[in-house]
Amino acid sequence: MSVASPDPSALQALLDGPHAAQREATRAALCALGLEQADGLPRDAYRDLVLDWCRQVAKTGSGSRSFPVQYGGADDPAGRIAGFQTLGHGDLSLLVKVGVQFGLFGGSVHRLGTTVHHERYLRDIGTLDLPGCFAMSESGHGSDVRSIRTQARYDAAAREFVLHTPDETARKDWIGNLARHGRLAVVFAQLDVAGEQRGVHAFVVPVRGEDGSPLAGVEIEDCGDKMGLQGVDNGRLRLSAVRVPREALLDRFGQVSPEGEYTSQITSPGARFFTMIGALVEGRICIAGAGFSVARNALTIAVRWGERRRQFGTGLDRDTPLLDYLTHQRRLLPAVATSYALQSAHDALTEDYAAAVLGSPTGEEQRALESFAAGLKAYATWHMVDAVQQARECCGGKGYLAENRFAALRNDSDVFVTFEGDNTVLLQLVAKTLLSDYASQFEDLDAVGMARHLTSRQVSRWLDRFTTPSVALRDPQWQAQALRFREERIVDALARRLRRLVQQEGMDALRALSHCQDHALAAATAHIERVVHERFAATVAASDLEVLPLVRDLAALSAIERDRAWWLEHGFLSAEDSRALVTEVNQLCGALRPHALALVDGFGIPDGLLRAPIATQAQHAPAGTD
Amino acid sequence: MSVASPDPSALQALLDGPHAAQREATRAALCALGLEQADGLPRDAYRDLVLDWCRQVAKTGSGSRSFPVQYGGADDPAGRIAGFQTLGHGDLSLLVKVGVQFGLFGGSVHRLGTTVHHERYLRDIGTLDLPGCFAMSESGHGSDVRSIRTQARYDAAAREFVLHTPDETARKDWIGNLARHGRLAVVFAQLDVAGEQRGVHAFVVPVRGEDGSPLAGVEIEDCGDKMGLQGVDNGRLRLSAVRVPREALLDRFGQVSPEGEYTSQITSPGARFFTMIGALVEGRICIAGAGFSVARNALTIAVRWGERRRQFGTGLDRDTPLLDYLTHQRRLLPAVATSYALQSAHDALTEDYAAAVLGSPTGEEQRALESFAAGLKAYATWHMVDAVQQARECCGGKGYLAENRFAALRNDSDVFVTFEGDNTVLLQLVAKTLLSDYASQFEDLDAVGMARHLTSRQVSRWLDRFTTPSVALRDPQWQAQALRFREERIVDALARRLRRLVQQEGMDALRALSHCQDHALAAATAHIERVVHERFAATVAASDLEVLPLVRDLAALSAIERDRAWWLEHGFLSAEDSRALVTEVNQLCGALRPHALALVDGFGIPDGLLRAPIATQAQHAPAGTD
Repeated sequence: MSVASPDPSALQALLDGPHAAQREATRAALCALGLEQADGLPRDAYRDLVLDWCRQVAKTGSGSRSFPVQYGGADDPAGRIAGFQTLGHGDLSLLVKVGVQFGLFGGSVHRLGTTVHHERYLRDIGTLDLPGCFAMSESGHGSDVRSIRTQARYDAAAREFVLHTPDETARKDWIGNLARHGRLAVVFAQLDVAGEQRGVHAFVVPVRGEDGSPLAGVEIEDCGDKMGLQGVDNGRLRLSAVRVPREALLDRFGQVSPEGEYTSQITSPGARFFTMIGALVEGRICIAGAGFSVARNALTIAVRWGERRRQFGTGLDRDTPLLDYLTHQRRLLPAVATSYALQSAHDALTEDYAAAVLGSPTGEEQRALESFAAGLKAYATWHMVDAVQQARECCGGKGYLAENRFAALRNDSDVFVTFEGDNTVLLQLVAKTLLSDYASQFEDLDAVGMARHLTSRQVSRWLDRFTTPSVALRDPQWQAQALRFREERIVDALARRLRRLVQQEGMDALRALSHCQDHALAAATAHIERVVHERFAATVAASDLEVLPLVRDLAALSAIERDRAWWLEHGFLSAEDSRALVTEVNQLCGALRPHALALVDGFGIPDGLLRAPIATQAQHAPAGTD
Repeated sequence: MSVASPDPSALQALLDGPHAAQREATRAALCALGLEQADGLPRDAYRDLVLDWCRQVAKTGSGSRSFPVQYGGADDPAGRIAGFQTLGHGDLSLLVKVGVQFGLFGGSVHRLGTTVHHERYLRDIGTLDLPGCFAMSESGHGSDVRSIRTQARYDAAAREFVLHTPDETARKDWIGNLARHGRLAVVFAQLDVAGEQRGVHAFVVPVRGEDGSPLAGVEIEDCGDKMGLQGVDNGRLRLSAVRVPREALLDRFGQVSPEGEYTSQITSPGARFFTMIGALVEGRICIAGAGFSVARNALTIAVRWGERRRQFGTGLDRDTPLLDYLTHQRRLLPAVATSYALQSAHDALTEDYAAAVLGSPTGEEQRALESFAAGLKAYATWHMVDAVQQARECCGGKGYLAENRFAALRNDSDVFVTFEGDNTVLLQLVAKTLLSDYASQFEDLDAVGMARHLTSRQVSRWLDRFTTPSVALRDPQWQAQALRFREERIVDALARRLRRLVQQEGMDALRALSHCQDHALAAATAHIERVVHERFAATVAASDLEVLPLVRDLAALSAIERDRAWWLEHGFLSAEDSRALVTEVNQLCGALRPHALALVDGFGIPDGLLRAPIATQAQHAPAGTD
């Protein structure tokens, strides 16, 4: 399996892709900020420093990049997403604050508002002259936005909306940029027009005056100390009958006339809700990318240390770099390979998204996009959690020193699995979409039954085709077919289980899905692993870098290995195949080991962003063990 | 599977076991300290507070409990270990500082010294009038103590030892209690008597004067900020030709006469080294116990929150506690069950250890004890890492707030997988012992060959016995047999691989073991899982608490489920059995769900130690989602 040693700059060019210029500009901007200034700062000073950094980022134009050209932007959502991913190599409080200001706050004004709002706000949002917040989550409804309870009643006489927090479960919670800096908030609330409930809508609500103090009727509380992201001023918001003018409604998908007549081009309130929420999918795409950026910092540090660190003992291990050990390779190299694979999937998602916001996607395309974003966000951020922990442990005591950055990497990123949609909830969303793809209406039981029939036929076709899979472990077609077989079988079995619960046990459909929750998560994971593999395999096929097929094989086979019991249980792998798979992963680790440094160098993270002495000191100095 | 709801106090009595009084005294002492004083303290103030807490712990007598009665102790190592485990529910800087002072420092004076040292030091160590350090690890030799390079040359003319740090790789590193408080250090160094190298020995070396400044020739450096454990003053130590009197040698296992004659009752330097190190096994036993204490804090918080937290939405999930969801149960309940199982294994290990130090174990018994301690330390601390992460994620945004303690729990405990022996290195030690148990001398290839033969016979016996395992998933005998079958098969296959590498490929034995490192770790993990199950099954069989068989089944079956591919690959489970196993784990989660609160209440952690608002506020107040 010996291959030519890859040139890190060629690997980086592959990963940087079409938005290399935007990524490079972000790296340069980050390096110029002096991120070390944050070390040891008290919380409020750190928050103010992060605000200042945000302004400097804004000056590069990368904050407003998604916005239309006429408001200082570049109509380039894909470039913005690439830049945001790159911010994930730096200070994560800065990343999150940038995400709140330009993505969530600016993005909701942009995507849910109309020209009047764009004219009035977008330019100032893009320069950060108008710092703002995105007030959606409530203390009682973190993962269930449709059920939020903040009220927005239209007072036709005054031509104003009255926004109100009826009780503590409706308190807005975890609102970034609120506790210290935000002047304006996009507040999500249940619209009541003339006594009729029109569902969740968004309103621009001033929360702070020029002097920085909360406006009348606005109560702001600091969320307090967090595990990490101390440079982000998360807050809680209560509104007491706060009045805003009629134009405060971000009215792209639903309008209220001065007289109090409600109109919307989307008649179903459910469809309207999902259209509005769908317009905000960019946040999940951004966090997915930032998640594997964080993983890359951790893996770069650990691989460089594993290459340098030698035992100076009397035993056999003298002068053996840690990375020569199989267990060390197993902890790091599959994660490095997966991190490459995720880039291709993320690039594809980004392009799908850019095409959707610049074009007019069908409902089905939009749903597919949301499902892809949800699945990749969950998969990439759990990959991040695992990779950071493995990398930390692989650096032993050195990994426990604050100076080597694992504390910050982990504590700042851990909430990525929770915010922008809890990963478990997101995977359920993916599962629902998979079921819908089967049966155009999940609630239509006959359709579910038909799907089962169709799929059984497909399954037989698969099984016919793969009676001797053992020969083909390193064939990307075989890998794709294994992953697709699992996805289809799991979705099929899930549909059958749901049908049985509903038809024979009289459960309603959503309750049944909740009952099969573990099965639904397995379906979603199988789906996203298949998609990631297919996207990366296409990238590899289009490249002439010799090392890439090994990277693809390790990414795919380590994923299959992790869940190989499933393929054994379903007759796709024999016991012998399964053992061969484990051996193959070991061999791929050995084959990639000589290229490990080049692979992490290909991530293109400047030393000034890694900021870990064990990763950035002269590479060939002797180094002991911990 | 419906069983009587367990009485938490009965569960706690089971877990508290024979040392309930010592545990209760420790809980009371911890609650009286006012742990909240540490919140937000600057590093040095925190360290001084922890020293003060250590003195208060010392006053209860629990620090010196292992020491002989005549020096203020109680000759009760088992009671000390139980008390230490209980400290794991409180501030972990306190736990570690207590471990350093009384366990590592005091323990080495006690176990490696003789009457002259006991007379001179033990009483003051037990009261903390003499704060001290344990200076073993070196910057170049963290996991390879035998290769440390600090020098201790005997100067017969002066009747002194000269201790010296020859270069940076020999710098002592991570020495707890050194950077700020320690007066005396037990320093491990290579003894040179009259030009002959006698291997690693320990010396008591004064490092600080009465005024707190380092003594001549002693250079002390602070390790600086860490991910956690900021209340522990870890430091680095360099010695420049520091002279100590002849009596500074802790001479239980090797003596130097005034004239410079070396004597030892253990003739082989290798055996002597392992005897000395073996005398220090208590530290690993202590960290194993502390590890699952930390896991219990995290699981208690998450289970209580999962029980309280309800969605207040419009969907089906209204008023459904999070813990009613299968995926939520799956993330928490197997860990709760494992945490119960680990107690039985830890109790058994503790009793073995107490018997060994109070009696005269054979070499084989001593080796078994060390292997058990190493394996349980690795297994329990990795259980901790997983449980804390799952619990954090299960608490969503609430889990990310510092006030709910996950940041401290995780950051303070993370190094448990690294210190007192890196887990990966410890599992290799377990594997070597397993191989030795097979062939009395691993290096003796004929013996390894013979072992292979013997084991094949055993394997056939197992396979004969279990042609239909599917009927017996919830039979503890079946569980034990499954776990034993895996252990024996893996060890057998490992022995065969090693034999082939050595005989056919001419590799030397240790190099061969390194080549099969992943296999060796699998053998060690299989071993420890079998031991944990057997010990817990014995506890369950002796108890009449109805819930316990379910807890045992969930602990055993979730462990088997995690690695079920192995049993599939080796023909022990059919595909159908394997799927039945997954279903059984789901059903056990459902069966234990009504008892989840009682099970974590059985951990017996006072609210004053949990200190997490989401776990300690009134249980029935409404609570939203994050």
